[in-house]
Amino acid sequence: MLFANATLPDGRRHHIDVQGGQIAALLPPSGDPTRHAGTLDLGGALVLPPLIDGHIHLDKTLLGLPWVPNQAAGNRVADRIEAERKVRATRTVPEAETGANLVRQVVASGTLHMRSHVDIDNQLGLKNLHEILKVRERFRDLVTIQMVAFPQSGILRSPGTAALLDAAIAEGADLVGGLDPVGIDGDLDGHLDAIFSIAERRGVGIDIHLHDSGESGIHQLAAIAHRTEVAGLNGRVAVSHAFALGSVPTDLAERTADLLAEAGVAIMSHGPGGAVIPPLKLLRDHGVEVFGGSDNIRDAWSPFGNGDMLERAMMIGYRANFRHDEELALAFDMVTAAAARVLGIVPYGIEPGGPADFVIVEAGSLAEAVAARPKRKLVIKAGRIVARDGVLVP
Amino acid sequence: MLFANATLPDGRRHHIDVQGGQIAALLPPSGDPTRHAGTLDLGGALVLPPLIDGHIHLDKTLLGLPWVPNQAAGNRVADRIEAERKVRATRTVPEAETGANLVRQVVASGTLHMRSHVDIDNQLGLKNLHEILKVRERFRDLVTIQMVAFPQSGILRSPGTAALLDAAIAEGADLVGGLDPVGIDGDLDGHLDAIFSIAERRGVGIDIHLHDSGESGIHQLAAIAHRTEVAGLNGRVAVSHAFALGSVPTDLAERTADLLAEAGVAIMSHGPGGAVIPPLKLLRDHGVEVFGGSDNIRDAWSPFGNGDMLERAMMIGYRANFRHDEELALAFDMVTAAAARVLGIVPYGIEPGGPADFVIVEAGSLAEAVAARPKRKLVIKAGRIVARDGVLVP
Repeated sequence: MLFANATLPDGRRHHIDVQGGQIAALLPPSGDPTRHAGTLDLGGALVLPPLIDGHIHLDKTLLGLPWVPNQAAGNRVADRIEAERKVRATRTVPEAETGANLVRQVVASGTLHMRSHVDIDNQLGLKNLHEILKVRERFRDLVTIQMVAFPQSGILRSPGTAALLDAAIAEGADLVGGLDPVGIDGDLDGHLDAIFSIAERRGVGIDIHLHDSGESGIHQLAAIAHRTEVAGLNGRVAVSHAFALGSVPTDLAERTADLLAEAGVAIMSHGPGGAVIPPLKLLRDHGVEVFGGSDNIRDAWSPFGNGDMLERAMMIGYRANFRHDEELALAFDMVTAAAARVLGIVPYGIEPGGPADFVIVEAGSLAEAVAARPKRKLVIKAGRIVARDGVLVP
Repeated sequence: MLFANATLPDGRRHHIDVQGGQIAALLPPSGDPTRHAGTLDLGGALVLPPLIDGHIHLDKTLLGLPWVPNQAAGNRVADRIEAERKVRATRTVPEAETGANLVRQVVASGTLHMRSHVDIDNQLGLKNLHEILKVRERFRDLVTIQMVAFPQSGILRSPGTAALLDAAIAEGADLVGGLDPVGIDGDLDGHLDAIFSIAERRGVGIDIHLHDSGESGIHQLAAIAHRTEVAGLNGRVAVSHAFALGSVPTDLAERTADLLAEAGVAIMSHGPGGAVIPPLKLLRDHGVEVFGGSDNIRDAWSPFGNGDMLERAMMIGYRANFRHDEELALAFDMVTAAAARVLGIVPYGIEPGGPADFVIVEAGSLAEAVAARPKRKLVIKAGRIVARDGVLVP
C-alpha cells in the first residue's frame, strides 16, 4: 500500500510506502506512485503521527447515556468526589460499555494510545479496573491503553486502598496513581510512602493527580521529585495538573522546574478551564517533559470534553496564550511525541521501520491543524484504515 | 410550513407553525401535523433561538486565505497592533472578501445577528468600514450586522481618529468604540470625552474594548459608568473584555458591578484564553447584563476561533468553571437572549409573532447542546432553510 503525496508535519512531501503494517520507506515525491498497486493519493494532505491522550478517565465517562446533569454541591475536589458517588449509585450501564463508547469516539478522532486512570477505593474495590480491563482487551488491536490504579478517594482516608492499588497492579494496571497527598489525605509522607513502595515493589511507574495549589502544591512537587530520585524512578513518574506551578512567582516555578527536570518527573496538563495552567514553556525550557490529556469527558466531574486530542491541543494553546506557530507546535508535541516519550511508546512517529499509524487531515500547516482542528479524513492503524471522516470503519 | 415535533430549550414540545416568515403559533404537540401542507417533522430535535455574536472583527479575519503565522513580537496589546499593521500591508485579498468568508461560516453555524468592530485610525481612514459595509449589504437578507467604529490604534495617539469615528457614524456605523483609555491613550478623560461626545451628538451607543487590568481597569469602568449616567445612555453602553473585574478582590468587583448595573453598562466576554475572565455569575447576580462574542477569528491577533457561538458558549462556560445545567444555560443566554437585549434585537426568541428564525440540533437538553456543540442540522431564517448540516444552502 502506498500513501502517495503526503505532507509531513515539517512540510516535507513524500509517498509513504507501507508493508506488513509498517512504514517501509518514505519515498521521494518525484517517484511515480501509479507504479504501485494499492496507491491512495492523499493529494498533499497533512499526515500526522497518531494522537495520544496522556490522561483520560475511561471508567468515569457517561458518554452514550442520556444527559446527566452535574450534581456537585460545591467547587472543591471533595464535593466532586461525593457527587460522583451519587452518579455511580444510579448508573445502570456498566463502565465497560460507556468506556467503549469513548474509546470508539477517540479512535475515530485519531487517538491510538492513551493512559487511563481507573478509580479504586475501599467501596469500589477493583470493579472499575475489571471493567476497563475488558475495554482494553476488546480494543487491543485498535488502541493501546495504559492503566493507572487511581485512588480517587485518597489512600489514608479510604483505609484498605493501598492494598487494593497493589492488587490492581498484580491484575494488570500499569502504573500506580496518587491524589493530592496534602489536600485529600492530609499526610504527604504517608501518601507518598504508600505509592512509592508499591511502585518500587512492583517495578511500575507513578502518575499523581495534584490539584493542590500555591506553596503547598510546590512543596509536594519537590517531595515527589526527591522521592523519584531516591527510588531510581527517573523518567517513570508524572504529575497531572500541577496547578501550583502556575500559581506561584516565576522564580519559585523555575526552581521547582529544575527539581522536576533533574528527577525526570513529567507534567501533564489538559489546559484547565477554571484553574491556572502551569507555565508550559518555562517547564519545557527547564527540561521538564510536558504532555497533554483530556481529563474528564462528560462525566460527574465535567460536562465538557470529547476526547479529540487535536481540539485538546487547541485548548492547551488557548489557555497558555500560545499564538505563534512554534507555540502551536509545542501544544501539538504535548499530544504526540512528548506523550509518547512519557508513556514509553516506542517506536513512535512517521519513520521507516515504525508502525504505519497516522492521521490524515486537510490543513496547510501543522499550526493550522491545531488552530482549526479539521475533520480527520482518515485514521490509519498498522496500515489499515480504521476511521474515515470521523467515523470508525466497522 | 409546519416544523413539527420541535423541542424548545425549556423542554416543551410543540409544532411550530410558520406563516410569511413569522412564527404564527406554537401548536400543542398532540395536533396531527400531517394535516398541514409542507410539514417538516423534526422528530423531537432541539430548536434553539438564533445565535448572536456580540463581538466579532469581520475586517480582521484572514479566513479563506492560506495560513498566516502570527508575527507579534510580544504579548502586549501594542505589539499585536503593530503586527497587524504588517499583515495588513501584505494582504492581497480585500477585507470584504475575507469578511464574507467569515459571515458565510458563522451563518452556517446558526448565527443570525452580530456586532462587528471595524478598525479605524489615521492610516486606515474609513477603508475597513467601507469594506464591511459591502459585506453587510451583501448578506442583508441573511444576517443583521451592527458595526462599531473602533479606534484600534487609540484616539489621542492617532490624531484625526476622533473625526474619523464621527464620520464613520455618518456613513453607517451603528456605535462608537473605544480602546483602553489609559493603557493605550494614557488619557482617560480625553479618550472618554471623544467617544461620549460623538455618541451624544450622533445619538448612538458605545462599545469599549477594555483590556486594562487591576485597579486601573476598575477605575476606568467606574468612569465609564459615571459618564453613561450623565449622558443618559443607560442600556446603550457596553464594555468588552473587562478583564479587570476578574483580577481584583471580590468586594471591589461587587462594588463595580453595582455601578455598572445602575448605569446599564453591559459586559462582553469571549471566555479569554490567556487573560482572567470576569466573574460572570457575580455580575449577573448584581444586575449587570453579560453577553458573549467570538472576538478574533484566525487573524493577526489570534490563530484560534471559528465563529461558532455554541462552541463559544462552551468556551465561556469552560473558562468560568461552569458545570451545572443552570450555569451552562447562563453561558447559552450570553450568546442568545442577553446578547439580543444588548444589541437591541426585538422581537427575539421562539415566540408567536416573532420572526421564524431558529437553529435545529440533536441534543437531549440545552446543557448538552452547549457542552457537546452538535452539528447544526438546520438553520432557519424567516422560515426558510439557509443552512443544512453546517453548510449554507445556496
